[in-house]
Amino acid sequence: MATKKKPVVSIVMGSDSDAPHLKDAVAVLEEFGIGYEVRVLSAHRTPDEAARYAKGARKRGINVIIAAAGGAAHLPGVLGSLTGIPVIGVPMMTRAFKGIDSLLSILQMPKGIPVATMAVGSAGGRNAALYAVRILALTDRRIETRLGRHIKDMAQQVLSKDRRVKRQFA
Amino acid sequence: MATKKKPVVSIVMGSDSDAPHLKDAVAVLEEFGIGYEVRVLSAHRTPDEAARYAKGARKRGINVIIAAAGGAAHLPGVLGSLTGIPVIGVPMMTRAFKGIDSLLSILQMPKGIPVATMAVGSAGGRNAALYAVRILALTDRRIETRLGRHIKDMAQQVLSKDRRVKRQFA
Amino acid sequence: MATKKKPVVSIVMGSDSDAPHLKDAVAVLEEFGIGYEVRVLSAHRTPDEAARYAKGARKRGINVIIAAAGGAAHLPGVLGSLTGIPVIGVPMMTRAFKGIDSLLSILQMPKGIPVATMAVGSAGGRNAALYAVRILALTDRRIETRLGRHIKDMAQQVLSKDRRVKRQFA
Amino acid sequence: MATKKKPVVSIVMGSDSDAPHLKDAVAVLEEFGIGYEVRVLSAHRTPDEAARYAKGARKRGINVIIAAAGGAAHLPGVLGSLTGIPVIGVPMMTRAFKGIDSLLSILQMPKGIPVATMAVGSAGGRNAALYAVRILALTDRRIETRLGRHIKDMAQQVLSKDRRVKRQFA
Amino acid sequence: MATKKKPVVSIVMGSDSDAPHLKDAVAVLEEFGIGYEVRVLSAHRTPDEAARYAKGARKRGINVIIAAAGGAAHLPGVLGSLTGIPVIGVPMMTRAFKGIDSLLSILQMPKGIPVATMAVGSAGGRNAALYAVRILALTDRRIETRLGRHIKDMAQQVLSKDRRVKRQFA
Amino acid sequence: MATKKKPVVSIVMGSDSDAPHLKDAVAVLEEFGIGYEVRVLSAHRTPDEAARYAKGARKRGINVIIAAAGGAAHLPGVLGSLTGIPVIGVPMMTRAFKGIDSLLSILQMPKGIPVATMAVGSAGGRNAALYAVRILALTDRRIETRLGRHIKDMAQQVLSKDRRVKRQFA
Amino acid sequence: MATKKKPVVSIVMGSDSDAPHLKDAVAVLEEFGIGYEVRVLSAHRTPDEAARYAKGARKRGINVIIAAAGGAAHLPGVLGSLTGIPVIGVPMMTRAFKGIDSLLSILQMPKGIPVATMAVGSAGGRNAALYAVRILALTDRRIETRLGRHIKDMAQQVLSKDRRVKRQFA
Amino acid sequence: MATKKKPVVSIVMGSDSDAPHLKDAVAVLEEFGIGYEVRVLSAHRTPDEAARYAKGARKRGINVIIAAAGGAAHLPGVLGSLTGIPVIGVPMMTRAFKGIDSLLSILQMPKGIPVATMAVGSAGGRNAALYAVRILALTDRRIETRLGRHIKDMAQQVLSKDRRVKRQFA
Repeated sequence: MATKKKPVVSIVMGSDSDAPHLKDAVAVLEEFGIGYEVRVLSAHRTPDEAARYAKGARKRGINVIIAAAGGAAHLPGVLGSLTGIPVIGVPMMTRAFKGIDSLLSILQMPKGIPVATMAVGSAGGRNAALYAVRILALTDRRIETRLGRHIKDMAQQVLSKDRRVKRQFA
Repeated sequence: MATKKKPVVSIVMGSDSDAPHLKDAVAVLEEFGIGYEVRVLSAHRTPDEAARYAKGARKRGINVIIAAAGGAAHLPGVLGSLTGIPVIGVPMMTRAFKGIDSLLSILQMPKGIPVATMAVGSAGGRNAALYAVRILALTDRRIETRLGRHIKDMAQQVLSKDRRVKRQFA
Repeated sequence: MATKKKPVVSIVMGSDSDAPHLKDAVAVLEEFGIGYEVRVLSAHRTPDEAARYAKGARKRGINVIIAAAGGAAHLPGVLGSLTGIPVIGVPMMTRAFKGIDSLLSILQMPKGIPVATMAVGSAGGRNAALYAVRILALTDRRIETRLGRHIKDMAQQVLSKDRRVKRQFA
Repeated sequence: MATKKKPVVSIVMGSDSDAPHLKDAVAVLEEFGIGYEVRVLSAHRTPDEAARYAKGARKRGINVIIAAAGGAAHLPGVLGSLTGIPVIGVPMMTRAFKGIDSLLSILQMPKGIPVATMAVGSAGGRNAALYAVRILALTDRRIETRLGRHIKDMAQQVLSKDRRVKRQFA
Repeated sequence: MATKKKPVVSIVMGSDSDAPHLKDAVAVLEEFGIGYEVRVLSAHRTPDEAARYAKGARKRGINVIIAAAGGAAHLPGVLGSLTGIPVIGVPMMTRAFKGIDSLLSILQMPKGIPVATMAVGSAGGRNAALYAVRILALTDRRIETRLGRHIKDMAQQVLSKDRRVKRQFA
Repeated sequence: MATKKKPVVSIVMGSDSDAPHLKDAVAVLEEFGIGYEVRVLSAHRTPDEAARYAKGARKRGINVIIAAAGGAAHLPGVLGSLTGIPVIGVPMMTRAFKGIDSLLSILQMPKGIPVATMAVGSAGGRNAALYAVRILALTDRRIETRLGRHIKDMAQQVLSKDRRVKRQFA
Repeated sequence: MATKKKPVVSIVMGSDSDAPHLKDAVAVLEEFGIGYEVRVLSAHRTPDEAARYAKGARKRGINVIIAAAGGAAHLPGVLGSLTGIPVIGVPMMTRAFKGIDSLLSILQMPKGIPVATMAVGSAGGRNAALYAVRILALTDRRIETRLGRHIKDMAQQVLSKDRRVKRQFA
Repeated sequence: MATKKKPVVSIVMGSDSDAPHLKDAVAVLEEFGIGYEVRVLSAHRTPDEAARYAKGARKRGINVIIAAAGGAAHLPGVLGSLTGIPVIGVPMMTRAFKGIDSLLSILQMPKGIPVATMAVGSAGGRNAALYAVRILALTDRRIETRLGRHIKDMAQQVLSKDRRVKRQFA
């Protein structure tokens, strides 16, 4: 799943146990041929490293940060407060609160430091990558074209399922 | 509050009763000198107009759509399914569910059609505009510089409040 | 489970993964001898097809649409905004929010575009079909008679369970 | 607000304190020229009267029952268990639970006894009447025509608000 | 588990699938030597039988009704509205709402018709029986004595667990 | 509002700010001519007094304890763990959690120590007193007769409201 | 309200709009004669200052940090990750989520970085100060004595309210 | 896992079924070489023993009480009301309410009796012990040094995971 391309999207997770929920995100970036890097950074256990990473991201060519975190889930907001590039937060599922804690901790950022929140779990992970694609497509014709095809492919999949179900009940 | 600039950001609301919660969003775009347009489009009462608008947005030069809606709040998702440009959803406060209905209707988009969700209400409105600013800043040095200053100004405001409170209790 | 009758009830699902939760709905329509059709249509991935379907439903003889969807669950509301026939929404269970997201996205329709919401999951699916039966029974004596019998049969089942339990503890 | 027409729609409330939230429902039926009656019946304080009413409704020509109730909100379900005609439940706002109690008590009916649930409060009241209109429109061309006009009028209102807002920000 | 004693406590469930959650309740009544009967009665599928049962309960010597129900869970309230004897409601666990629907439907009874609500599930079932015991103990010295012993036994069980755990970590 | 009768019902509140929500409870006991006492006892601020009170209640002739508390709301459970007489808990409204905290703290008592939970706020207060009435009516013919009349009076009130509303819309 | 004592407790708020909810906390520290300082520091708008403050707190003699924050409420966790002294978090009330967002963002800290969470709002603010008192009382006999008196005074206040209410209903 | 040291931290659980969720807490205290004791005490089933224990804790040298409880979860508050030493509450997971009942019952203590609430379940258990460590570290240089190392070790673990993940996607 490795890529040689210079990373423009960064996927950061608060714990390596979040990795399985970000597989889809990685797959999307691979599919669109977008360079990316994957990191484990904890807002609470490695606060200095996380701060350094966020402050240097833009210089290193990163255009979008996808940050996944669960529970108190401060990571997306902490990164967003230390860089001016768009941050997309992916709330991870939790046991007691089913990810509502992660969601609110990411969503309820104060005025001035916006974070784009996605759905809880791996669906949110996939959509985070597709949102990064939409941002990059604004200034990259090749990506925009692929995005158009991607949307059409999804429609085709639904339509073929529709035909199958229609036949089944005809 | 009018601007002559060619709109690159679109602010769409599901009902004109949402307008007060989007004032901050407009103010941010004015402050950054970004061209914008403001529209009332209902996913349910004017579905055809909403569809037409979303499909034509990119051609007309729109780069980001900010869509505010309350309750079933389908507007951001409906627009996002008909255009490939980034859509930012702002959940409006509601009486019975305090905006949780609006939030979930915007947040829980299926895999494939991402919408960036902001906090409920006017704080979310302001941050939606600042998120649009972050997206545009990626390819516009002037906006990026202003964004850096904006972040520093916010810090200064907190620091001056800190000094005032410190003195008060010294 | 196929039927030759001209469809008057339409069962639409947002994803074919919803199909198992609609088996009961199909079984009810079969039991009452009501013509139906089953479709997969996504409000977000096939917005144009969904719109076309809703606009043409009445002309094609459809009297009631049962629409199941999960998460942002826009399908019932989107269909209801494009046709004047009664739409019954069935919220699908979801992992993070246990179907509360689906429920609120269907329930909280704005003034003017009503959708009849049923319970979450397959119980809601079964009841959606029985609600369609109630609507059709208003103008179809044969269906009305069967409905009366159906209600009496349910009572008999409870009464026989009551006898069994009473004996067990006597 | 009185009407001479033979009632085909029944509006029942669990307490006369619910009346203000049903004004919109009455207004809709008046607008569409549909005969209706308004009753106060408590599932808990007048259980026998409520039962008698439900059992006799169909005979008396009622085609749809709109039942509003708050808190434990058993009224719609109790009526629905004693008649075969479609019942539409409108959950009333409550102080402690913001109508979520009313909503769940109406929504979560067991398999076999469907109730169509609307949004909480007067928006739900209005939509309940419009849902009754949709049911009646299936077999009444005059009502169907008016419904089509009603939907177009709503679109026009949104469009004129759109024009106003567009001008304001142009 | 049968008993010959004249029933003074009635255990009613809305569906025989609730029976496992009432085993503890039966066991408590057996332990205290209290006569009881067990019934299946549905507020919605057998409304007339449920009404008849509630109205005749006092005459037949029933002093307390324990009513378990899930979802819309109208049974305890419906019984309580048709008899003057104390009703204890036990909310059953549900899949989508984890019993919160059952709980609110039982708890939020209107002024005038009280129902005593217990915890969700079989813990609530057990406590419902113990609450019936407390009511009967007010006028039955033998039951009161047993209740005192029961409370002391519970304390002894905790104390012996405490000793075991203390030793384990000493 | 004082009464000379020997108290058999005790109304205990965790804070005197709960008093207004218990007025209805007092009024009910007055109406039924039942002796009662009213106390302020805090499970947390006066734990020893609360314990002493619960332990001595039965001896002093108290048959039912109504305990109102908000927030952590330990009072009903603490009293119930120290006496064998029935305790009825009334959850008080709270600002942050709208009484859900009070409700769960009272409802979720462990197996062995039952507390009868009523609705949140003054409706729950009124019903707590009526539940005490139901318990006392089991062995007091005079109270039972008054309870029957009370239930009929409530029905009459609903019926007269029904007549008024019916006329209004006739 | 100023104090000359060397600060050992630090009260930090994320925004000066939180100040009114911390008045009680200040009053408690004044009452116990404990030195304190009050600061405004934002985890998101002044991340560097907040980090510097937390890292230097122990050296400057601070023993306990009370941190109040609302919404995403990262402040207590961010401070706790940068110092080893006990941090007490006070969730501020919010409009949409009634402080549940603030609560979960503070409560759900990952393993390794504990934060002590108090109740939402000013009650939590007061208790935060009393918790700091409890910590300091462990090694300061004078504070411990005052704490004992404080607890007795609270009991006396409840008892005198009890006497007043008892008289009122006697 | 036994220790000979004089206990300064007390771990109390409401039921021995909570023990597995406190293993981490015990492990932390062992790791830091802090003396502790483990007890089973029920606020409801052994109220007198619980009271005696809390009142005598300080005299016996206990400096911090960690109290775990589920459901109505009164234990931490009851202990905290009977001693002046810091109490840390750990809400246990529950089936119906996923620990939200336990959380609110512990969190929402009234003004005057503070309890420090941790996250739900064993993560909260571990952090409770680490919070006790932070309190003890204030006056014990050896523990403070170990705590510093513990925090650095956690950072190292994250950094090594980061290196592994980085390599994997390079």
